[in-house]
Amino acid sequence: MSIRHVGFLGLGLMGSRMAANLKKKGFEVTVWNRTRARAEALASHGIRVAATPAEVAATTDAFCTCVADVPALDELAFGKDGLLSTAKAGQLFIDFSTVSVALVQKLGAAFGAKGVDVVDAPVTGSKNGAEKGTLVIMTGGSEGAMARAQPIFQAVGEKVIHCGALGAGTQVKLAGNGLIASMLQAFSEGLLLTSKAGVDPRKFIEVVQASGFRSPYFDFKGKALLERDFSTHFSIDLMHKDLSLLVENAAQHRIPTPAAAAMKETYALARAAGKGDQDIGAVVTVHEDVCHHRIGK
Amino acid sequence: MSIRHVGFLGLGLMGSRMAANLKKKGFEVTVWNRTRARAEALASHGIRVAATPAEVAATTDAFCTCVADVPALDELAFGKDGLLSTAKAGQLFIDFSTVSVALVQKLGAAFGAKGVDVVDAPVTGSKNGAEKGTLVIMTGGSEGAMARAQPIFQAVGEKVIHCGALGAGTQVKLAGNGLIASMLQAFSEGLLLTSKAGVDPRKFIEVVQASGFRSPYFDFKGKALLERDFSTHFSIDLMHKDLSLLVENAAQHRIPTPAAAAMKETYALARAAGKGDQDIGAVVTVHEDVCHHRIGK
Amino acid sequence: MSIRHVGFLGLGLMGSRMAANLKKKGFEVTVWNRTRARAEALASHGIRVAATPAEVAATTDAFCTCVADVPALDELAFGKDGLLSTAKAGQLFIDFSTVSVALVQKLGAAFGAKGVDVVDAPVTGSKNGAEKGTLVIMTGGSEGAMARAQPIFQAVGEKVIHCGALGAGTQVKLAGNGLIASMLQAFSEGLLLTSKAGVDPRKFIEVVQASGFRSPYFDFKGKALLERDFSTHFSIDLMHKDLSLLVENAAQHRIPTPAAAAMKETYALARAAGKGDQDIGAVVTVHEDVCHHRIGK
Amino acid sequence: MSIRHVGFLGLGLMGSRMAANLKKKGFEVTVWNRTRARAEALASHGIRVAATPAEVAATTDAFCTCVADVPALDELAFGKDGLLSTAKAGQLFIDFSTVSVALVQKLGAAFGAKGVDVVDAPVTGSKNGAEKGTLVIMTGGSEGAMARAQPIFQAVGEKVIHCGALGAGTQVKLAGNGLIASMLQAFSEGLLLTSKAGVDPRKFIEVVQASGFRSPYFDFKGKALLERDFSTHFSIDLMHKDLSLLVENAAQHRIPTPAAAAMKETYALARAAGKGDQDIGAVVTVHEDVCHHRIGK
Repeated sequence: MSIRHVGFLGLGLMGSRMAANLKKKGFEVTVWNRTRARAEALASHGIRVAATPAEVAATTDAFCTCVADVPALDELAFGKDGLLSTAKAGQLFIDFSTVSVALVQKLGAAFGAKGVDVVDAPVTGSKNGAEKGTLVIMTGGSEGAMARAQPIFQAVGEKVIHCGALGAGTQVKLAGNGLIASMLQAFSEGLLLTSKAGVDPRKFIEVVQASGFRSPYFDFKGKALLERDFSTHFSIDLMHKDLSLLVENAAQHRIPTPAAAAMKETYALARAAGKGDQDIGAVVTVHEDVCHHRIGK
Repeated sequence: MSIRHVGFLGLGLMGSRMAANLKKKGFEVTVWNRTRARAEALASHGIRVAATPAEVAATTDAFCTCVADVPALDELAFGKDGLLSTAKAGQLFIDFSTVSVALVQKLGAAFGAKGVDVVDAPVTGSKNGAEKGTLVIMTGGSEGAMARAQPIFQAVGEKVIHCGALGAGTQVKLAGNGLIASMLQAFSEGLLLTSKAGVDPRKFIEVVQASGFRSPYFDFKGKALLERDFSTHFSIDLMHKDLSLLVENAAQHRIPTPAAAAMKETYALARAAGKGDQDIGAVVTVHEDVCHHRIGK
Repeated sequence: MSIRHVGFLGLGLMGSRMAANLKKKGFEVTVWNRTRARAEALASHGIRVAATPAEVAATTDAFCTCVADVPALDELAFGKDGLLSTAKAGQLFIDFSTVSVALVQKLGAAFGAKGVDVVDAPVTGSKNGAEKGTLVIMTGGSEGAMARAQPIFQAVGEKVIHCGALGAGTQVKLAGNGLIASMLQAFSEGLLLTSKAGVDPRKFIEVVQASGFRSPYFDFKGKALLERDFSTHFSIDLMHKDLSLLVENAAQHRIPTPAAAAMKETYALARAAGKGDQDIGAVVTVHEDVCHHRIGK
Repeated sequence: MSIRHVGFLGLGLMGSRMAANLKKKGFEVTVWNRTRARAEALASHGIRVAATPAEVAATTDAFCTCVADVPALDELAFGKDGLLSTAKAGQLFIDFSTVSVALVQKLGAAFGAKGVDVVDAPVTGSKNGAEKGTLVIMTGGSEGAMARAQPIFQAVGEKVIHCGALGAGTQVKLAGNGLIASMLQAFSEGLLLTSKAGVDPRKFIEVVQASGFRSPYFDFKGKALLERDFSTHFSIDLMHKDLSLLVENAAQHRIPTPAAAAMKETYALARAAGKGDQDIGAVVTVHEDVCHHRIGK
C-alpha cells in the first residue's frame, strides 16, 4: 500500500515541525493534538485537523506519534477514541517519541495483531533539526516496515540508522540521552569549577576542543552557557523522564549504570528547584545558585 | 638565559617519549628516574643520566618533571637531593605532571623565591601524542615564563593553550579529566546496555557519531571496547588519582560536582576489583563481571 | 457492618502468616493466591480457598491484599475476575502491600465509588513479626475506616500508627525502607572496611551499639553478616522495588533524595549480580566479590 | 611511670571540656591551644597554659591532642616547637582527634622511636558527652599503653572499647561517622518527603521508633529538625573532613563505599551552600532551600 496520507499526533516542539515538513514534501497530512489550539495553528498550512486519534487512524495510510511520555502515548493508542480502535491491516505506525521499550513492544503486539506495521523511530537533533528536516532517526522494526517508512523518514530527517528489531531504536535513544546528560554535566562542572577558581572558562572550552575528546556539542552548549542562553531545546523535565526510563530499562536488563543514575538524581534536583521546563543547560544553575557563583563571573 | 640543556625527571609512558623528543629537536638532555633502569634505556639516544634530581638541577638550564602523583613530585622537588637543593636563579621549571593545584603553588613559592620561573603544563593526548610530539599542553604561569618555555613546548606538543596564572593549567586539566571519565563511563554504559538488550552495540556508536554529541574519542574507545583492547593508554589508578584531586579541588572551591564524584566511586570500584593498572577502558569490565555479560557478546 | 469473614489475597512470606493469624483470632478466612498451591497449604487450617479475587470480594465482609508489587495489585484489583468486579458497598479493603501511593489512590477512587472503605496499611517487622503477630502497621485512610479495621490490625500486628489520609501509610513506609537500606549499607561498609583493614569487625559493632546511634537493627544484621546467614527476611528484589517507588515518589514531590538514589543503584548492582532473591544483607557480598575480601576473614 | 601531670592540646568544643574533666578528676593539667585565648579561659580552673606544644611535652607525663584535622595535628606534633622536639622515653601520647590512619601511624613511628607510647583514641558522644565525661572512646595501641591510659580515659569518658593495634580506633571511628551521616541523611529525606507529601513528619518518626531499626539518634535529631534547632554539636565541615578521610581510607584498602561516597558529596553541597560551620542536622536545609519546602511546614 503506497503511503500518501500521513497522520501526525503530538505537536510539541518537535512534532509540529515534523508535521510541517511532511506537508512540504508533498504528503497529505492530518494532525491531532491534545491541546487543539496547537493543531489549529498548522491548519493554515493546508493540514487537516482531526477531532480524535481514532479519526486519524481511520483516515490515513500511516500515522506517526511524537508525544512527551509513556502515559500520553498509551492513552493516545489504547484509550477511548484511541488509534487502536480504528487502525486496520496494511497501515504503518511510526512512533517518534522517546518512551519505554516496554510500551513500544506493547504497541507492536496490539497493532501487529491487527496487521499494522509498527516502527519505533526516536530522533535526535533538537528543535533545530526538526525545523530543518535534518534529524537523525534511530529505528527499530522489520525490514519491510523500514522500507515502507523511508519516504516519511526522508521528509523529516537526513540520516536513518536501523538499529534492529522493534524497540531497538528506543534502546539506542535512551542510552544516547544518558550520554548527552553525562557530557553536559561534566562539561558544566568544568566550566563552573575553573571559573570559580579564577580561570577563564573559555580556556577550558578551548582545551576540550583541542583534545581528542572534543565534540560539536561542547561548542553548542559552551556558547549557550557563557551567554546564559537557556532557551529550551530539550527540557529538564523531558531529560529527567528519559533518564528515568534509561535507569528503569537498565534495571530490567540487570545492568549497573552509575553515570545514568547520578545524572537522574542531578536532574531530580533541578526539577526540585522548579526548573523542569528550562533547557537542560540550566541544570548547572542549580549548582550556581547553591554556591553563589556564576560561570564566567 | 637561553635554554640549551634540559633536564627531564620522570620517565613513565609519557615522560620517556617527551624526553626523547626533546633530544630529537636538538636539546642537550639529562634525565633522572626513580627506577634507574628506565633512565638507562634512554642513554643510548645520547641522553645523559643523572644520579639525583639535585644533579639535574645543578647541570641544566631548565628542568621538566612528569611524574605520577603528588608525593612523587613533592619528594623529587623538596626531598633529600631534591631539585630545590641545587636550583638557581634564572632557571626554568616546567611541571608536566597532573598534580594538585596546591602543590603547583607550593613549587611556585619555593622555587620562585630562588629566582626560578615555574610553569605548570599538564598535557593531554596519551602515549600516542607523547610519541608523536602532538600533545596538547595547557599551561599556567607568567607571560615571561611562557615565552621562555615555548621551544620546549614545541618539541613535545603541537598546541599550547595558556590558561592563566600558575596553577591554571592544572585546574583546566583536572576538569578535563573529569569530562573524559564521564564521557567514557556513559558511553560504556550505552554499549553494555544495548548489547545486553540484544541490540548491536555498533549501532549505538553509529548513532552517537551521527549526532551533535559525536566525538573522536568515541571512535577511539568504541573500537578498543569492541575489540577488547585494554592496552594501557591511561591507567585506572592514574584517573582515580586525578578524579580524587578534582573532587578535592572542587571541595576547596565549594563547588558541587556530582558527575566527578560518581566517576571517582566508579574508579574506586575498578581499583577494588584489582584493575588499577589497566586502561580506563577496562572500567566497564567490572560491570561486565558483575552482570555476566560482555559488550558485543 | 460487623466484620466476621475476611478475605486475604497474596500469600507470600508475609501474607501466609498474616492470614493464619486472622484465622487463629477467630475470623472466618477465605484466601486466594496466584499460585494456588500456596493457598491450598493453608486449607488445612480451616481456611477456605477461593478460585478468583472476585470470589473473595463476593463472599467476605472485608478483604486484605499483601502482594509483591504494583502490577500484581493492579491486576488483582482491576483485572479480569478482579476484586472490583464483585466488591459492594459497606465492605472494607485493607492493602498491606508496599506499592505506589498512586496505586493506593487509584484503589481509593475506584472502590470508594462503590461504597467500599479503603485503607493502606503497609507493615514492618519482616516474616518474624508476621509469624508472631507483632507487626507494626502504618495506616492511611478515614477515621471511620480505621475504626472498622482495628480488629483485623490487632490480629496481625501489635502496633498501629495512623499516619493520615489514604496513602499516608504508604508514604511513611517507603521513606522507612529508604532508611533501612541506608542504615544497612553504611553499616555493611563499616564492617567490610574495618575487616579489610585488619580490625575485628565485632569491635565496630560494639562501638556502634555503645553509641547514641545504636539500633537493635545492627545487632540483628550484624549477627547475620558475621555468621553469613543470608536467609531471606526481605529480598533484594523487593527492596529495589521499594527504593524505585521511593525515588519515583520523591521525584513527583520534587524532593531530592541523594541517599535513596545511591541505595537504589547499589541494589541495582546486586540484582545485576544475580542476587535479587537473596536477603538485603547480601548486598555487601557484591562488594566482597569485587574486592576479594569477606567480612570477618 | 605513674601519670600525674597531663598535657592537653586542642581546646575546641570537645577538648576544652575534656581538659576541664581531667583537672576535676585530680590530674595536674597543662594546656595549649593555637588561639591562646581559648587556653587562657581555662586558666581560672587551676590549669596551666603552655606557650608551645614543645613546652607541654617537656613538662608532662602524658599529653593528649584533640584537634580538627590532619594538618593541625601534623604541625602540632612535627612542626617547629612541636611535641616531637621535647618528647622523651616513658611518656604517653593519646590522640583523641579524628584524623587519618596514616597520620596516626606516622605518630606511632616517630614518637615510638623515642620511647613514647602512642594511642589513638577518637571519641563519640558530641559536646554533651565531653561535658559530662560520658564519651565513648575507641582505642588503638598496645595492651601496655592501654593500661597506662586507663585513668585518663576514665576521667573523660564512660566506656572504652579497645579496637586493636595502633590506628584501629581511628579505623572504627571513621566507619562510625559514615554510618551517622547515612542515618541522618536518609532520616532527613524521610522527614522532608513525608512533610512535602502532606503527612505529619512526626508520624514518620513514630513509625521509625516503633520499628526494629529505631535508634536514640532519631529522637535526638528528629526533635532538633522539627524544632529547627541547628546549634552545632558536630559541624558539617568536620563531618565532611571525616567522610573525606573515610572515602580515602576505603580507596587505600580497595573497598567500594557507595553510601559514604554519596554522603561526602551531599556534605560537599552543604559546604558549597556556605553552611560548613552549621550542625550536620542542617544538611537537609540545602534540600529545603532548593525545593522551597520546610520540614513540618
